Amino acid sequence: MAVGLHEFPLIPEIKGVRIGVAEAGIKKPNKKDVVIFELCEGASVAGAFTQNAFCAAPVRLCQKHLATTNARYLLINTGNANAGTGKSGVENALKTCVALSSQVEMDFEAVLPFSTGVIGEPLPVEKIVAAIPTALANLSGDNWRSAGLGIMTTDTLPKGSVRTFNFDGRTYSIAGISKGAGMIRPNMATMLGYVCSDIAMSVDVLQSVLKDVVNKSFNRITVDSDTSTNDSCIAVATGLAGNEIVTSVDDPLAQAFLVAFTEVMQELAHAIVRDGEGATKFVTVEVVGALKIEDSTKVAFEIAHSPLVKTALFASDPNWGRILAVVGRAGVEDLDVDRVQLHINGFEIARDGCRSPDYLEEHGKQAMEPEEIHIRLDLGMGQQSDIVWTTDFSHEYVTINAEYRT
Amino acid sequence: MAVGLHEFPLIPEIKGVRIGVAEAGIKKPNKKDVVIFELCEGASVAGAFTQNAFCAAPVRLCQKHLATTNARYLLINTGNANAGTGKSGVENALKTCVALSSQVEMDFEAVLPFSTGVIGEPLPVEKIVAAIPTALANLSGDNWRSAGLGIMTTDTLPKGSVRTFNFDGRTYSIAGISKGAGMIRPNMATMLGYVCSDIAMSVDVLQSVLKDVVNKSFNRITVDSDTSTNDSCIAVATGLAGNEIVTSVDDPLAQAFLVAFTEVMQELAHAIVRDGEGATKFVTVEVVGALKIEDSTKVAFEIAHSPLVKTALFASDPNWGRILAVVGRAGVEDLDVDRVQLHINGFEIARDGCRSPDYLEEHGKQAMEPEEIHIRLDLGMGQQSDIVWTTDFSHEYVTINAEYRT
Repeated sequence: MAVGLHEFPLIPEIKGVRIGVAEAGIKKPNKKDVVIFELCEGASVAGAFTQNAFCAAPVRLCQKHLATTNARYLLINTGNANAGTGKSGVENALKTCVALSSQVEMDFEAVLPFSTGVIGEPLPVEKIVAAIPTALANLSGDNWRSAGLGIMTTDTLPKGSVRTFNFDGRTYSIAGISKGAGMIRPNMATMLGYVCSDIAMSVDVLQSVLKDVVNKSFNRITVDSDTSTNDSCIAVATGLAGNEIVTSVDDPLAQAFLVAFTEVMQELAHAIVRDGEGATKFVTVEVVGALKIEDSTKVAFEIAHSPLVKTALFASDPNWGRILAVVGRAGVEDLDVDRVQLHINGFEIARDGCRSPDYLEEHGKQAMEPEEIHIRLDLGMGQQSDIVWTTDFSHEYVTINAEYRT
Repeated sequence: MAVGLHEFPLIPEIKGVRIGVAEAGIKKPNKKDVVIFELCEGASVAGAFTQNAFCAAPVRLCQKHLATTNARYLLINTGNANAGTGKSGVENALKTCVALSSQVEMDFEAVLPFSTGVIGEPLPVEKIVAAIPTALANLSGDNWRSAGLGIMTTDTLPKGSVRTFNFDGRTYSIAGISKGAGMIRPNMATMLGYVCSDIAMSVDVLQSVLKDVVNKSFNRITVDSDTSTNDSCIAVATGLAGNEIVTSVDDPLAQAFLVAFTEVMQELAHAIVRDGEGATKFVTVEVVGALKIEDSTKVAFEIAHSPLVKTALFASDPNWGRILAVVGRAGVEDLDVDRVQLHINGFEIARDGCRSPDYLEEHGKQAMEPEEIHIRLDLGMGQQSDIVWTTDFSHEYVTINAEYRT
């Protein structure tokens, strides 16, 4: 039921990145569920991770390895999240890192582990270890689509994005994949996103750019308000494009990179929403006219999380009173409800806190009919604004999550 | 699909209270949708109302009237919430008060208005005014069940509760009705609750007791996290039981009243959850071992609101990892995940932040099977605790809310 999600793009080789995939039999028979990224020596790697206190064992280990060593391998499995697994979870994640590192003759800290899938069950270490040689054997620069398939859980389609940009006579490439459809309300990053570029950029600058862009992409999407235990987003700069290394965010090349990188990150984030569990709509919630940006963010998320708004979206029902009710309970200080305005897909629905004088039910129906819905709410208080992307709430969402483990 | 909701109880006459009902044709043909409570002279009346900034016109007017005059009539309509209707909404509510007051020869401020139903459409004043004479003509002490039916919207059953208690050789009665099934996450009170007693009690004491008990009943339930625009809860003490008027909360009679009143209020609040839209489970979420009571309240509500937890409850799936994931994202300061424990219906599911060593999937299945589910989460940090009551999330919820206006 993915909404407006296009074919996986043709992603060319990113110099310095090779990808291998394998079927370890964790997820289901004949499904790719182990993915390995191999990064060239000297690549800069930055990461953003879930803020969930119950963060998974691989997330803890990944952060530790990232802080101590230059990462050379990313080891990803699906079908098991290795979360809520206590100390033995960390030991198990470590075992998989050691298994990979010993085959490629590296320190185990050079391997970053990632897991996604069911929470609370022991990681099937042996299956993963057994699949590593196959994944290493098919390492290639052309495996982006296979990797997109290999990291899926309830996703219906693989998600990828690619951009090139020119700067000072040189061409740079950025490519990425992401996964996720449920338990999506990222707080720092989403459930597995990997973006690689051939640009040469210091880790500090890359980390700063990643943090900035995550807040405009993965941290502004929500499917069901549940922040995952395993969210991880990794940015890689292999440095093989030939440029002199970028060491400052004020470098004009850093700014050019930021623009293209933001496009890739937003496309990957949107892809997760478009493939949101049971989604039949892709919804942009824009809140403008706030005194504080925190207010606009809060109201946008409250609208995006309201089960009543989401079921009305599913029904294409212009039940706009539910949106105003959410605004009223969102806790905006000094809100003057008589100044609130609401537009949906360009139609003025509410003005001065109540139904617009010119509103007709037909307008509402017309506004709500398309697959792509833009809700624009003006608080009428100030100049701050924010945008959040989300989905509707359908029968299919209930079915998927009621039957997830069967 | 109401869960364990019993027949409407036999409610005897509460001295000083008469109720009239009528069919105004707002809701659907042949459905009671206007209810009038007549209170005796000298009755004490206290109220608690929604904190939603988009509170409905009748809520604003009701609070104003309550502050200025001794209330003698409650005028309730269903089928239209008169919310998001701006200034004309208040004028329309006022017109209905004036229509009633002129027929009973009172000040219009002696009438408290209440509305529930669709948000954002003009109140059908003429229909309500036309129905008032019928409702007045059938005023009677025996109309509690009819009133329970008359205030329903998406409710499948009328909700009532009654208690008597003895104190110092005298018998006192407390009876009440409530309504609500969706847009239920009260903040001060729920969508329409009316509780009457024959006790003599000052308005101040009654208001204090009401505020206290609302926080242990209506303010601790949630169906779908959406706070209504029209929540109102009214407590009446007619003073005809014969006792000397209670003027202090420390009066032993006030304490005896508090116990019985709490039982009535909790039964009415639970009834709303049991009849929650699409509910197949009645779920008690108890969070203990918190450092601050705010933490226990927050975690309990986050669990109760999680779509992933709610769909797992619908499926009777012991997917307890989703509960731990919610705890982790709830923002409890200094949470040590390795001390968290989880019991469901008495079965130990998680200990020390991960699956209990003795846990078997059968235990989880057995724990989740009943209609009544008790989730007990121990944060292992301190002595504070709180309880919230909620429902699961089913296909029926989506159907009801996608088709609400059709």
